[in-house]
Amino acid sequence: MKQAEVPFDKQVIDDIVKQQEVNPERCSIRELKRLVDKIEEKLGVRFIRMEFGIPGFKTNSTAIEAEKEALSKKEISNQYPPTEGIPSLKEEAAIFIKKFLGIDVTPECCVPTCGAMHGGFLSQAVVGYIHPKKRVILFLDPGFPVNKMQNRFLGLECDSIDFYSKRGEALVKAVETRFQKGDVAGFLYSNPNNPTWITHTEQELRGFGRVLTQHDGIAIEDLAYFGMDFKEGYEKPGVPPYPPTIARYTENYILLLSSSKIFSYAGQRIGVAVLSPKLFHWKSDALEKRFGFKSVAHSLIHSGIYCTTSGVSHAPQWGLKALLEKANQGNWNFLGELKEYQRRARFMKKIFQENGFRLAYDEIGKPLNDGFYFTYNYPGINNTDLAMEQLYYGWSSLSLIETGAKETGGFRACVSLVDESQFDTLRYRLRRFHEDHG
Amino acid sequence: MKQAEVPFDKQVIDDIVKQQEVNPERCSIRELKRLVDKIEEKLGVRFIRMEFGIPGFKTNSTAIEAEKEALSKKEISNQYPPTEGIPSLKEEAAIFIKKFLGIDVTPECCVPTCGAMHGGFLSQAVVGYIHPKKRVILFLDPGFPVNKMQNRFLGLECDSIDFYSKRGEALVKAVETRFQKGDVAGFLYSNPNNPTWITHTEQELRGFGRVLTQHDGIAIEDLAYFGMDFKEGYEKPGVPPYPPTIARYTENYILLLSSSKIFSYAGQRIGVAVLSPKLFHWKSDALEKRFGFKSVAHSLIHSGIYCTTSGVSHAPQWGLKALLEKANQGNWNFLGELKEYQRRARFMKKIFQENGFRLAYDEIGKPLNDGFYFTYNYPGINNTDLAMEQLYYGWSSLSLIETGAKETGGFRACVSLVDESQFDTLRYRLRRFHEDHG
Repeated sequence: MKQAEVPFDKQVIDDIVKQQEVNPERCSIRELKRLVDKIEEKLGVRFIRMEFGIPGFKTNSTAIEAEKEALSKKEISNQYPPTEGIPSLKEEAAIFIKKFLGIDVTPECCVPTCGAMHGGFLSQAVVGYIHPKKRVILFLDPGFPVNKMQNRFLGLECDSIDFYSKRGEALVKAVETRFQKGDVAGFLYSNPNNPTWITHTEQELRGFGRVLTQHDGIAIEDLAYFGMDFKEGYEKPGVPPYPPTIARYTENYILLLSSSKIFSYAGQRIGVAVLSPKLFHWKSDALEKRFGFKSVAHSLIHSGIYCTTSGVSHAPQWGLKALLEKANQGNWNFLGELKEYQRRARFMKKIFQENGFRLAYDEIGKPLNDGFYFTYNYPGINNTDLAMEQLYYGWSSLSLIETGAKETGGFRACVSLVDESQFDTLRYRLRRFHEDHG
Repeated sequence: MKQAEVPFDKQVIDDIVKQQEVNPERCSIRELKRLVDKIEEKLGVRFIRMEFGIPGFKTNSTAIEAEKEALSKKEISNQYPPTEGIPSLKEEAAIFIKKFLGIDVTPECCVPTCGAMHGGFLSQAVVGYIHPKKRVILFLDPGFPVNKMQNRFLGLECDSIDFYSKRGEALVKAVETRFQKGDVAGFLYSNPNNPTWITHTEQELRGFGRVLTQHDGIAIEDLAYFGMDFKEGYEKPGVPPYPPTIARYTENYILLLSSSKIFSYAGQRIGVAVLSPKLFHWKSDALEKRFGFKSVAHSLIHSGIYCTTSGVSHAPQWGLKALLEKANQGNWNFLGELKEYQRRARFMKKIFQENGFRLAYDEIGKPLNDGFYFTYNYPGINNTDLAMEQLYYGWSSLSLIETGAKETGGFRACVSLVDESQFDTLRYRLRRFHEDHG
């Protein structure tokens, strides 16, 4: 196929941006998606789409078959799901946490949710009202912007620490200093981090754990990209090494397991919130005032899940149960299948770097692992201009400003929708950009 | 089968009630369910179960087949659902509203939710923050208790009007008086009413509509039991009469469509919130402060749905789309199939009345329609005692105290789980109760 020449017609793109009333540097992922859809349609071209973090693979057929069997053979479609989730999913989730994370929890601690988004929403709700007066959830920035939207929806307060220039003990110290003010109830972050793909280290997690235990704070650890730093050895159930988790360093945690990325199962909205056994039984009068129950477990399940969705769709629970069971049995290397993302990231980062771009974030003292996302900027061009310019040159990605990055500019590129057949186009467009701006 | 004799062993039941730490007169539906499960297990008996409002029929196979086909043949399980819902479901929902309710809305106004519970939660959230200072949602009592739990979860305020002794103009007047205080944003009720099965009349709805329009108030009309007052003529699409709805009398409404009861589809958590075209485009600065968007539509969809569940499970959307399409085409009398509930209610009410019970609620000047629920009490025995006594005699139902009934006692009986084969047992147990207490 002949390459469409870039830059595209700037006037047309400027007009569409104006019509849509969006600022490409400040808009949300979904606004950006709509904008680029419009431009593609108007110009009759295809962008290299890197803005949206959606799975690039098919769901494993095990889930599909399990859903279909449940719909046909079990009486599930006419019966309300149990508010706390179906027992077999709760059991497989507890086994998964033991075998792939090395952490002991009981099945009752594993609560199915309508995706990890639902788990995050309910976790913030409960953690934010567990203490009579602590209403702040502390975030690490940059992060997933929707968590802050949840915080605002819930009438809570948020504060955040930009970790661009703080890693290791400096980051732990910053978290500790913030907790010392006395108004922080919870600490929310994702590991690996979305958008930077930095993985917080065991040393950092140990420090966070110490601070949380000391201040009765609760970690909400978003494991949306569970194991996707792809360190060697995660694949074998029941055998270390395990992915890093705060659960090893404090008893005050909720882990958010998502099936969207690790199982490419985003469409059926099914995840699991894993509460520590201590937190599950934690009681407070403040909770009763808000939720009608004293315990965290009842507040999250019998108020939270009940009054938001009255349980989680039945068939997807059976689907996820089947996937976890398959992984737990040890004859399915689900992480291995995802390494295609790693391969793509390696190539794409190289193409960016060969054409004058720099990676915006890096690991402490070593290159960042390749995975679902990477970040970049272009020396000499500020963020506002780059947000527009890259539209002219035919690619799209998310501005880090939108993810809370205060100390640096840059963009998040997601590799999932870019396959090998588009690498030449990506190379051509970046090269043309570099020729015009270098 | 030989009848188990009643009363059962009172000591055993008393002990279980004590162990479970519940008060049968004050506990929630799900607490009561757990209590009765325990008693059944311990005594090895079967109760007549009337506490839980769950569907008694199978889901129509059209939904199941549509879900299975979507899972197999459409790429849906790995793709996030559109936040605003899949276009074909939105279209069929708008057609359904036109054909079965006689109301014009556009597909964009029809927003799929994770069950009507999700719709009610998000509706209260948006309505409760639409005005800078109006935080009260007004309820009609008795009602569905979980709506008040949602209200509290959301940090809103609630007030309610007990309509036991107020119907017609007196009820409209009471609603108007309450709105005149100036702090009420929304008005939430179900029609037919759960638990009493009273249907609010066109006259009442016209009055409510006038008050709402005048005070910029918004109706949240829960249609969980859509058409289930079974008035003749609802069955034919596109032909009056239509079930009563506030949508005929004000432009300020959200209708909550549920698939749980009318389509026996509770297990997959799929419903539709229908916003009036006026409300869809309604804008306020107060909304932007809370949700980041000025309009009701964006607040409900791109903040509300996005940050609670990130969309509604894909396959159930296809299932509901298929059911609505089938109904819209006019060759499936879905309401006719539900008339079995009506038949059961007729018999069961008769059995109760023959044994000294009275119906707790009635229509204005005529007997109440037979349907999914009815209410009863027993003259000379107070609610607290009856709540315990009926456990001894082997049946279970929900105390109306739990549903907010202030002016009268009584219990709500749901007919869905009681089929003809249990009528003799019900008759025997009520007769024994009556012999011992009459």
